[in-house]
Amino acid sequence: MAKKKTTKKATTKKRAKRVGPVSRKRDAETIASIEQLADDVTKDGLKGRDPSVDIPLRTVSNMNWNKRKRILEMGDATQSRELFNVSQARKFMQTLLLAKGCKDLIQAQKTLSLRGMYYMSLHTIEGTKEKTFNEQTESDTVLEDLEVGLGGLREELHVFAKKRGTMVGNITVEDNGDEIDCRRMGTGGYAIPSICEPSVMQFKKCDAKFVLHVEKDTVWSRFNEDRFWEKHNCILTEGSGQPPRGVRRLLHRLNKELGLPVYCLLDCDPWGHYIYSVIKQGSINLAFESERMAIPDAKFMGIRADDYDRCDLSADVRIALNDRDVTRARQIADYPWFKDKRPWQKEIKKLLSNGFKMEVESLITKDISYVTEVYVPERLKARDFLD
Amino acid sequence: MAKKKTTKKATTKKRAKRVGPVSRKRDAETIASIEQLADDVTKDGLKGRDPSVDIPLRTVSNMNWNKRKRILEMGDATQSRELFNVSQARKFMQTLLLAKGCKDLIQAQKTLSLRGMYYMSLHTIEGTKEKTFNEQTESDTVLEDLEVGLGGLREELHVFAKKRGTMVGNITVEDNGDEIDCRRMGTGGYAIPSICEPSVMQFKKCDAKFVLHVEKDTVWSRFNEDRFWEKHNCILTEGSGQPPRGVRRLLHRLNKELGLPVYCLLDCDPWGHYIYSVIKQGSINLAFESERMAIPDAKFMGIRADDYDRCDLSADVRIALNDRDVTRARQIADYPWFKDKRPWQKEIKKLLSNGFKMEVESLITKDISYVTEVYVPERLKARDFLD
Repeated sequence: MAKKKTTKKATTKKRAKRVGPVSRKRDAETIASIEQLADDVTKDGLKGRDPSVDIPLRTVSNMNWNKRKRILEMGDATQSRELFNVSQARKFMQTLLLAKGCKDLIQAQKTLSLRGMYYMSLHTIEGTKEKTFNEQTESDTVLEDLEVGLGGLREELHVFAKKRGTMVGNITVEDNGDEIDCRRMGTGGYAIPSICEPSVMQFKKCDAKFVLHVEKDTVWSRFNEDRFWEKHNCILTEGSGQPPRGVRRLLHRLNKELGLPVYCLLDCDPWGHYIYSVIKQGSINLAFESERMAIPDAKFMGIRADDYDRCDLSADVRIALNDRDVTRARQIADYPWFKDKRPWQKEIKKLLSNGFKMEVESLITKDISYVTEVYVPERLKARDFLD
Repeated sequence: MAKKKTTKKATTKKRAKRVGPVSRKRDAETIASIEQLADDVTKDGLKGRDPSVDIPLRTVSNMNWNKRKRILEMGDATQSRELFNVSQARKFMQTLLLAKGCKDLIQAQKTLSLRGMYYMSLHTIEGTKEKTFNEQTESDTVLEDLEVGLGGLREELHVFAKKRGTMVGNITVEDNGDEIDCRRMGTGGYAIPSICEPSVMQFKKCDAKFVLHVEKDTVWSRFNEDRFWEKHNCILTEGSGQPPRGVRRLLHRLNKELGLPVYCLLDCDPWGHYIYSVIKQGSINLAFESERMAIPDAKFMGIRADDYDRCDLSADVRIALNDRDVTRARQIADYPWFKDKRPWQKEIKKLLSNGFKMEVESLITKDISYVTEVYVPERLKARDFLD
């Protein structure tokens, strides 16, 4: 089971570059914030005050739509979590426990999934039958609190979400010291990591002119098989539905650092619109991270409600809207960032008057490669996007 | 939007190797079988006989456990599907329609997802209000019938299932002409393609001594971060739960063609046991493909019911079995390939007497890297697996 010679060369050469999930400097800062949190609690105790921690409030009422920056932001309201308050003591304990867990993780230079973090901090409190957490959802919520409270990304606490999504295209990235040429990734592609921070992933040679982000891996495969990214000199990504944080962070960085426009090809339904909204403006749940996740310049390429007539699609592709879709569509039309936009109001109105949804795959009824050879090239040529 | 120079070199050099999802020879054979199917129907018609197609029966009663080969196999029973039979006419039409769709796909040298195939063959029959398919499940079932009827893998019909799963490790593969060094795939990894047939993917340099297949991507990340594959000279794969066909086919080929043992690290619960059962013996639904998918030599490494005591885990990691788990566990114990195996009978009995499940992540309560540094290395050293 000893290390074999075959892999030695590559690793020795590259090992120096592997610096852990976030930079050492940032790690030190995160540890300092965690220690500060603990110090404040101790001081409270020593001074005879009730120990407490302040956690920014993550509620809809504390979210603001920053019209200038065009992102969802968190307001200043906070909530105190006190040790000597029966309704808060449990959360107080959990907050400190997970803060300690993150500190241990950072010091060990390791990362864990949300589930792993739950297990790491799970135990029965001595002398009681009380578990530190009853379910993972409890630790997930407190971890989000900590993220906000410490002003760091979850990734900086060395905790990651489930991995999903793939990339190919005209770019080379360096991931943990390994150079990955996304032009040479075959049919499978490069699996986008959970943590796409600059310390793990650096952008190397990139000649791509834009990013095409599609909703589903099956659509992505169509584009990759037709070598769309090569013909149109772009980067092709997918996020298997609502893109996970890693994919969002990667798209954000491609947009901000390399200046690449991000075009989204999503289904014509409220879910597709919501995915676009999250990519563009951020999500309510993670509003505190919009600055590092949202892409206010992202464009919605389609599918659009008028494609049904414009592309002369057959009635077979219609998927009837149900009541929930209708409610959801109206909610989305009411989002502050869609409210003032006539093209979006028109789009959602048309979706509702159509009374049906359409998937990207519905274009296959025209031709297998209609989407890669006609639909997207036409949109790109006409620069015809919803903003 | 023209093709850019930067990617030209690589592609010109490699393009010759891109032969499509399956080999041209196999494609010609598949087209010949489809044409044979159509010819038979035409002949029936011309001779004044009722046109029909025979489809092998995919029911539990037509499955056999081949004890010698140690795989699930399909029996010889078939079912006739007749045009002039009210209850069969619709399926008859769908079968021929999808057969034609596959032929078009193969001739175009393209592939489609199951959903794409549904759309491709979806239309309203002229002069009626009858759709060719009401739902994708209808076309999925008929596609499976076709697979069996034509004696080819679904991949040979150029249809693919959802992509899932990642790989890193001491191997280089060539995927559609691109050489992919799985030792240099960073934290993200190589996304395992939906179609892993030899014509798309060839194995190049491989020094690995075994494959470690884990259930979840989050566990995979732990192993990759700890560079387990490098220290133990192996290949590391995950299938995000029940591995999709691409992953199963890849594992099968790594086992058969390269002779690598496949060790599975799965949760200690009926779902984990079922995943193992499918990897090892095949699934009832796809029994006709066991020969090319199943790995009768695969081993179950853990987690095992006695790990609770053996690894001195705390009571916190217990997840109570529910009624469905208990039923499922008993069903699995009754599978012919587990029935005669005392260690498996003991394992499932112990699971039931424990009354709780355990996840691979539960080992994190011992130490973040207990699973990569202690648990798996000990199992490997002792060659202690369930078969």
